[in-house]
Amino acid sequence: MRKSWNFIVMTIGYTVIVILLGGLIFWFVWRPIKIGSYEPLHPERLNKKQAYLSSLVARDTILPNIIIINFDDLGYGDLSCYGNQLIYTPVIDSLAERGIRMTDFYSCSSVCTPSRAGLLTGRFPLRAYAGDHVYFPEGNPIADQRKMQGSKNEIPRDEIMISEALKANGYATALIGKWHLGDIEGHLPNDFGFDDFFGVRYSNDMIPLHIYRDGQIIEEDKKELENSSFRYGYYDMDTPLKVEGVDQSKFTENYTREAIAFIEKNQEKPFFLYLPHSMPHVPHFSSARQDGKSKAGLYGDVIEDLDWSVGQIMESLQSLNLTEQTLVFITSDNGADVQGSVGNLRGRKQLTYEGGQKVPMIIYGPSFISNPRETNVLATNMDIFPTILDLLDIPLPDDRIIDGKSILPIILGSGPGPHQYVFYNSAGSGNIEGVRDTQFKYHEDAIGTSLRMFGSFSMTMTLSPQLTDLKYDNESHNLIKKYPDRARLLKSIVDQKRKELTDNRRGWID
Amino acid sequence: MRKSWNFIVMTIGYTVIVILLGGLIFWFVWRPIKIGSYEPLHPERLNKKQAYLSSLVARDTILPNIIIINFDDLGYGDLSCYGNQLIYTPVIDSLAERGIRMTDFYSCSSVCTPSRAGLLTGRFPLRAYAGDHVYFPEGNPIADQRKMQGSKNEIPRDEIMISEALKANGYATALIGKWHLGDIEGHLPNDFGFDDFFGVRYSNDMIPLHIYRDGQIIEEDKKELENSSFRYGYYDMDTPLKVEGVDQSKFTENYTREAIAFIEKNQEKPFFLYLPHSMPHVPHFSSARQDGKSKAGLYGDVIEDLDWSVGQIMESLQSLNLTEQTLVFITSDNGADVQGSVGNLRGRKQLTYEGGQKVPMIIYGPSFISNPRETNVLATNMDIFPTILDLLDIPLPDDRIIDGKSILPIILGSGPGPHQYVFYNSAGSGNIEGVRDTQFKYHEDAIGTSLRMFGSFSMTMTLSPQLTDLKYDNESHNLIKKYPDRARLLKSIVDQKRKELTDNRRGWID
Repeated sequence: MRKSWNFIVMTIGYTVIVILLGGLIFWFVWRPIKIGSYEPLHPERLNKKQAYLSSLVARDTILPNIIIINFDDLGYGDLSCYGNQLIYTPVIDSLAERGIRMTDFYSCSSVCTPSRAGLLTGRFPLRAYAGDHVYFPEGNPIADQRKMQGSKNEIPRDEIMISEALKANGYATALIGKWHLGDIEGHLPNDFGFDDFFGVRYSNDMIPLHIYRDGQIIEEDKKELENSSFRYGYYDMDTPLKVEGVDQSKFTENYTREAIAFIEKNQEKPFFLYLPHSMPHVPHFSSARQDGKSKAGLYGDVIEDLDWSVGQIMESLQSLNLTEQTLVFITSDNGADVQGSVGNLRGRKQLTYEGGQKVPMIIYGPSFISNPRETNVLATNMDIFPTILDLLDIPLPDDRIIDGKSILPIILGSGPGPHQYVFYNSAGSGNIEGVRDTQFKYHEDAIGTSLRMFGSFSMTMTLSPQLTDLKYDNESHNLIKKYPDRARLLKSIVDQKRKELTDNRRGWID
Repeated sequence: MRKSWNFIVMTIGYTVIVILLGGLIFWFVWRPIKIGSYEPLHPERLNKKQAYLSSLVARDTILPNIIIINFDDLGYGDLSCYGNQLIYTPVIDSLAERGIRMTDFYSCSSVCTPSRAGLLTGRFPLRAYAGDHVYFPEGNPIADQRKMQGSKNEIPRDEIMISEALKANGYATALIGKWHLGDIEGHLPNDFGFDDFFGVRYSNDMIPLHIYRDGQIIEEDKKELENSSFRYGYYDMDTPLKVEGVDQSKFTENYTREAIAFIEKNQEKPFFLYLPHSMPHVPHFSSARQDGKSKAGLYGDVIEDLDWSVGQIMESLQSLNLTEQTLVFITSDNGADVQGSVGNLRGRKQLTYEGGQKVPMIIYGPSFISNPRETNVLATNMDIFPTILDLLDIPLPDDRIIDGKSILPIILGSGPGPHQYVFYNSAGSGNIEGVRDTQFKYHEDAIGTSLRMFGSFSMTMTLSPQLTDLKYDNESHNLIKKYPDRARLLKSIVDQKRKELTDNRRGWID
């Protein structure tokens, strides 16, 4: 009797699974295609953006150059100045020593597209429809599937990027490296204030992996897209993907060469160089020069290659006598992927544990930093936009919320950090999953286990909310019942921010 | 054109999933029930076991008492002597300081049942059909499902446990705590050499959670089994499961009381106390005395409660003047579960990353340890059986392979460790997934992501093999191409051990 009961329970369980699966198939495969259900662009928002940019004018004063070096998937523990014992990054270490090394700096997401949207706009990624995981190349079945679910695949034109504000101020601007904010005409790097674009539109494991100069393909990935649609669930880190016609082992070198050329070309005027490297995103490639030199295998070679690149750029600045008037940010878009070190943190890329969003941040600029130091001030990559505008005394746009805040006082050593709280944003949805203060982290869905199958499928198990002590523990012990008041306070901060983001997703100020 | 192609690919993909799922349903639900396909017991093996045990006789010499305290799911970083900064375990710390604290000690599995089988038999868990994850209560649908797949649910009677060898030598023997090696008559603790059994047959999240004294239920879990079959996919760590009639908050206290009673009762003769605590396995309970005292919340209260328990037992030994002639082992069955600290290791319970199998091991015994120290000698919990027999000068059985080796020279400070290599065994299959030497680890299936849904479903993604440097890195960087010779060597060690275990699974020596 008992046994037959059990089998009834099991049969019901499996039937539920089949029904759910049927629903999924209906939803994804048979449901009428609804590609392109984009929110219509509001002309008045575009007008406001243009009015703001027009109000900014090139000035006669000497303006500092800005360089943002953004590594792809570099983990919190991947640099020797952040504790790696196998990888040696003397150039970056030396900048850290003579600049500011931030120990509690966060990306606004644990995956590529949202992180980059947040960095360039200074706003939560979901404001720009870039919060729900990553954009895929147009025509790729995953892009289609995502769009059927209501995801966008490009940044709305009414968003304002750092590059646009700086260009309006007379800066020469360039993006050398990976864009990953869509490949739809009208929404490309050159459409968002970058005079020059050299690099790839997507991650190193996405195809087609053409290399572009502005809108032109200069190295063509000849591999057929359709034949390799499912190449994304890719985990053999050290075996190159089959790309034809593009030499990934030259990425770091080529970006470096192009970056230096841009600097040389614009040495007489202020410039903004945004250098988002393709490495160390999988699959890994280092230059021939670096092959086998690191103690950490190919991954280490890749990182030491990037350190070499930083060295080349710093030398170029030095030789042009530009070091003093340049401010350099070195960071990563999110935590380490399956390979790479998260140091002693819990979790990795894709997750809102510390290992997913906490990243290195080194700020170097001899004229601005009179007091080199390590600091545990809270900050995020959404702060870079307002910080740069603050430094240049450019007003922020007043028709929209800028979620980041200026950390210029930290750089100048003149004041405290602007943040009491930092938020954690789901890689899958962009929704707030948690918040931290200087000691505690309140975290919902802490067990969020992202499985990557067929590229974009991800699965999350729900755990009860956690309060953890980031000062003395790496997210191992739940203190929610020990400090109920603190938990309640932090939960209310999360709820409030969620409500703000729901009530006014785009963050318009009227 | 392209778009329809994509949908064909997607449709095929989903069809494949449906077919696979249909196969699963057929296999698990409709396939004829094949419960009980146990390998027949070989009478000659049982005879050989009995002959061995008969050859052991009680001796007149004063024999030391042996205590093994085995925590459930205690992580590598959960004790203050292993670096925890929130949890304070002064008693265990003090034993560690005056004894031996092992930094590279491993459980033979990252889940309960296999780990315990290996500890008690000194052999790889799969030899006793205990390698493929955990036993479930008879009659539970998951137990039935497992048996349909060919899993066993009890230890064969021909296996020899430490308790049996010691009992044959005149020891009083007791198991106080969690058995988790089956609930089938004839295969219970009292059938394997334990004079006394007090405790539970399963983990703290399994039902029915009756408390037994020997074969008798003394506290009955009145919750119906059938109504709660699916209670296993349980992740709300801090909310008690609904058990009726059994007070889980008294587990640690009750085990402690029973352990002390056993010691007192047998103070005049040698005794063997195996004390596998139910805590800190989920769901967590600490005694009222400890409630809210730790800085690490309920989990910390639970651990500090266990430290209190160790203190009570040590005091009892002291008051009976037995400290000198007692050897105490303190360890854990596997790494920390979702909560709990793995220190700086990668991975957790269920995985063959370090965080799954590396556990604390403290050995205390003033008469045996003249040179208290921390050691990174390699050892596993399968070594405990041969170590104890070595100490007592009892021969090992000669009709079977004992995979563990005596670490008595480490305890006495008289010689080197016995292991050049330690193996990692899959929690799901018991198969060898990797091996380490003093510096490097060769690891296949390193990304093995165990998902626990409906209790036993687990899913593994395959990653390319990894070679990692355990000395300078926490399994973040794959060195397989940097040290191909070392990788090949370690792979050959894995292959050889796999072959040994396939060719002679039960490990009989004829």
